[in-house]
Amino acid sequence: MATKKCNKKCAPQTCSQLQQHRGKFKPVLPNILKNGPASVKVKAGKPTKSVADQAKVKKIFPHTYGMPEIAFVKGANSGVSKKAINAAVVLSGGQAPGGHNVIAGLLDGFKKANSRNKLFGFLGGPSGVIECKFIEITPALMDKFRNTGGFDLIQSGRTKIETDEQLSKAKENIVNNKISAFVVVGGDDSNTNAGVIAEYLKKEGVDASVIGVPKTIDGDLKNEQIETSFGFDTATKIYAEMVGNICRDVNSARKYWHFVRLMGRSASHITLEVALKTHPNVTLIGEEVLAKKMTLAQVVDYLAKIVAARAKDGKNFGVVLVPEGLIEFIPEMKELIAALNDLLADNEEALAKLSKVSEKKEFVISKLPKKLADLMKSLPEGIASQLMLDRDPHGNVQVSLIETEKLLIEMLRARLAQLKKEGKYNGKFSAITHFFGYEGRCGVPSNFDANYTYALGYNAAVLALNKCSGYLSSVRNLVKNPKDWACGGIPLTMMMNIERRKGKEKPVIRKALVDLKGEPFKQLAKNRELWAKTESYLFPGPMQFFGPEEVTDMTTETLKYEHKKK
Amino acid sequence: MATKKCNKKCAPQTCSQLQQHRGKFKPVLPNILKNGPASVKVKAGKPTKSVADQAKVKKIFPHTYGMPEIAFVKGANSGVSKKAINAAVVLSGGQAPGGHNVIAGLLDGFKKANSRNKLFGFLGGPSGVIECKFIEITPALMDKFRNTGGFDLIQSGRTKIETDEQLSKAKENIVNNKISAFVVVGGDDSNTNAGVIAEYLKKEGVDASVIGVPKTIDGDLKNEQIETSFGFDTATKIYAEMVGNICRDVNSARKYWHFVRLMGRSASHITLEVALKTHPNVTLIGEEVLAKKMTLAQVVDYLAKIVAARAKDGKNFGVVLVPEGLIEFIPEMKELIAALNDLLADNEEALAKLSKVSEKKEFVISKLPKKLADLMKSLPEGIASQLMLDRDPHGNVQVSLIETEKLLIEMLRARLAQLKKEGKYNGKFSAITHFFGYEGRCGVPSNFDANYTYALGYNAAVLALNKCSGYLSSVRNLVKNPKDWACGGIPLTMMMNIERRKGKEKPVIRKALVDLKGEPFKQLAKNRELWAKTESYLFPGPMQFFGPEEVTDMTTETLKYEHKKK
Repeated sequence: MATKKCNKKCAPQTCSQLQQHRGKFKPVLPNILKNGPASVKVKAGKPTKSVADQAKVKKIFPHTYGMPEIAFVKGANSGVSKKAINAAVVLSGGQAPGGHNVIAGLLDGFKKANSRNKLFGFLGGPSGVIECKFIEITPALMDKFRNTGGFDLIQSGRTKIETDEQLSKAKENIVNNKISAFVVVGGDDSNTNAGVIAEYLKKEGVDASVIGVPKTIDGDLKNEQIETSFGFDTATKIYAEMVGNICRDVNSARKYWHFVRLMGRSASHITLEVALKTHPNVTLIGEEVLAKKMTLAQVVDYLAKIVAARAKDGKNFGVVLVPEGLIEFIPEMKELIAALNDLLADNEEALAKLSKVSEKKEFVISKLPKKLADLMKSLPEGIASQLMLDRDPHGNVQVSLIETEKLLIEMLRARLAQLKKEGKYNGKFSAITHFFGYEGRCGVPSNFDANYTYALGYNAAVLALNKCSGYLSSVRNLVKNPKDWACGGIPLTMMMNIERRKGKEKPVIRKALVDLKGEPFKQLAKNRELWAKTESYLFPGPMQFFGPEEVTDMTTETLKYEHKKK
Repeated sequence: MATKKCNKKCAPQTCSQLQQHRGKFKPVLPNILKNGPASVKVKAGKPTKSVADQAKVKKIFPHTYGMPEIAFVKGANSGVSKKAINAAVVLSGGQAPGGHNVIAGLLDGFKKANSRNKLFGFLGGPSGVIECKFIEITPALMDKFRNTGGFDLIQSGRTKIETDEQLSKAKENIVNNKISAFVVVGGDDSNTNAGVIAEYLKKEGVDASVIGVPKTIDGDLKNEQIETSFGFDTATKIYAEMVGNICRDVNSARKYWHFVRLMGRSASHITLEVALKTHPNVTLIGEEVLAKKMTLAQVVDYLAKIVAARAKDGKNFGVVLVPEGLIEFIPEMKELIAALNDLLADNEEALAKLSKVSEKKEFVISKLPKKLADLMKSLPEGIASQLMLDRDPHGNVQVSLIETEKLLIEMLRARLAQLKKEGKYNGKFSAITHFFGYEGRCGVPSNFDANYTYALGYNAAVLALNKCSGYLSSVRNLVKNPKDWACGGIPLTMMMNIERRKGKEKPVIRKALVDLKGEPFKQLAKNRELWAKTESYLFPGPMQFFGPEEVTDMTTETLKYEHKKK
């Protein structure tokens, strides 16, 4: 067995004081789980179907489609403890606070069922499954990582197990190491992949359960069955601490506009949650920009109006939140990027002959349809060059490199100058930019995330011990006390639909965008005029682990408002 | 009286949960102060002299030079309570966590002496003193701001009261409003200014005491008498939380080098403190770069060696801390900037005729001495243009706009490419940048800063009531329990020396740079080789206000090590 030794050392003197104390925190297990897997019985609901494209999804997942939702109820179930098993876990995709506690929950769940059960961790993400690199997660090793942030115990990776060769390799390594429970911790794509592996193993007649665990700070893995993905709570608390501090600074210095870009490319949940926590003057929500089919000029104009109105009150300062993915939500920008991707590929030779950026730009503009050519002309020089020059290895525009907040500031500055000429603006505009992303992915998990991830892991162990393959670990009623959380499993196929990815139809778990009819967005919409004019800032401060419960254990505004609705 | 009404509303429902609980925190007063000003007696020490240039400083401060250090001792002093007085406070310079608690300490100290004493707050910094804009700080108003971050209660500003006209205006407003105690909360420059005002009022025969309070997150206002300035503790805790999270992310993702620039232009204390709290792979300290007279190429080479050594171990990731002021500590860069300032001013017309940046650059290079011309040529395009084009209203290069971390990354990339050609490097280098500054200036003050600032304010009130004008509020023994802190005052002139500023000799409080022979730097020097090779990261996590004392009340590593030495 290719077990690699973990050389992680974490003696007390090499830990921060908080780490030492946080290590002693005991996550609260839901009552239903607290007596261990042998006291939990599976209660199957009605057969399920996928959220859309039922026939197509069923065809791709003949062995795992239509399975019932599962709820855990109290009852003797000693069968799960009889035979010692090997289980394995893999972390997939970007880091999220609480990953280590999922593993702790898994370990404790499996060990409670049978102390001879073993848990292995594949190293470096799904590639570790293919290459068969793993370590044993012993209780002693685990104790150094309980309630800590990061994925450093076994790391993560972005490989997917998709091709026949990869699937076959994964199967081989699972079979050879007698692994009968395989847990994938990941976002929507990784859990789709977990569903694919579950289906494959069933097809191949391998007696191993594959269980998914919903992770992503972006908050876009949620639906009727999954109330939230883990990590979102902690990450947004960290970002809100920073944004709150900036709001206080703005209100003290009273001379700058701060533009804060927040992580979240495909959905604006983080930005919305941070806005509800801090009440900034302006919050842009990608989903709304898309729904209203706003042009870039309209977005800039919306900003300019607020800046000008505040300037009239003598307030040349404020805070603006910008979701990382804004650019791709602006229809004309999406169109421009798509057109550029084609145009630059088709004219590679001709462009290579032009040495100056200005010539390249002229050439590109001459080839674009008028509407897009005008848009390209309106972009600040730096951004226009970046769109033409910074390409990924496939030749595509690297949207993630675009510093949206700087783009907005440059265009806003031009718009304000114009308003000044027209006598409609008489203020000063100085802007400062921030981007928060990496700062939140590996924070110490909040009490909520520490409890939630531990429960998700423990619950996943119970699902695996009951051979519920192709399920996502599901813990619900999250606005209640953790003791009262409901546990069970959701068939992965139930959340899928068919989408086109790179020109091919693929089954994928549907991404949750900000619901413009949902209560969280409505709260923003209801208050934003007031927040724009005033300084209604809230200062959440640093996340607390000790002290009054309403400070330490409060959940997200998003969850609170979503539950209110029900 | 031109009292402006404060329209700050902070009803519970508009505060975060943490704000509400934090509002109830009662700072611990040093035992010597806890029975109020009437139980504190002044014990004068020996006459003092300035740290340097004694004759010159004495000449400028004939009325306030040479005063004794003051220690507070227990004893009846009912005189301070007899007559009701008006006091006023002004916040000067950049925000620092705890400013509101200085004001709370002042208010409580003055009110304890005589409930009819009044405290006013000048608005918007020293310009509020000149323009006579102020509000009364009533107990009810104060209660909304206790233990909060920011300076929003009365705001701050960067004006200095220096010219005869300004001094005379300030005097007029102090006299007209019967203010007999005037407290200036600020950094080295602002406290120098407090000394100037104290001297001026004495000279003019005005019976008003001027007291300074040492504030700055940068940590560069400290000396034999002042152990630390307030705000440094909180700000470095906030930055260390972020840097620790990034270290954990780096160690989980294992594919990026993160370059973190930290606030602190004239000294690298913040960077050093954050390094001692988090153990990053590389920490650049401006003062060391200066002492070793390192060139930019040498700094880049130092980085390249560590990156290459880690790559050899398969570790293409790490964390680098860069102090904001690094560029100005590199002798040749300082020289280049000075030369450019002159050259660009002298050749304004000739340069205006050149339209292309490349032509301007060629022209500039042709005029520079060879050494500086070579340096200019070695700089990445973007930085070189920035040096030539981004000028402040005085025509000077805007050093603070230079994104040092990006400069280092670009040059490092070139150096690594060269090492690769030479077969000395075989890794991948992807870099991500961060700048933390504004995020820390207005954080919720730590327990330490909340206690320290409250004590500084209360202590300043006692100094003022005893008519100790020209003193800095001094609270010492800060590594002990707040109850055992020593209180008193230090003559402002004692910390001064003469420096050339804008071509003129001026008395200023000497800035404290990182002491390369001091214990904090030695700790870095002793450990940095190990930290470079390994992942000895510490994860301080978010600042805690409740829970175990060693988590909530721990002081800075800098203070701890500086006291160890003694």
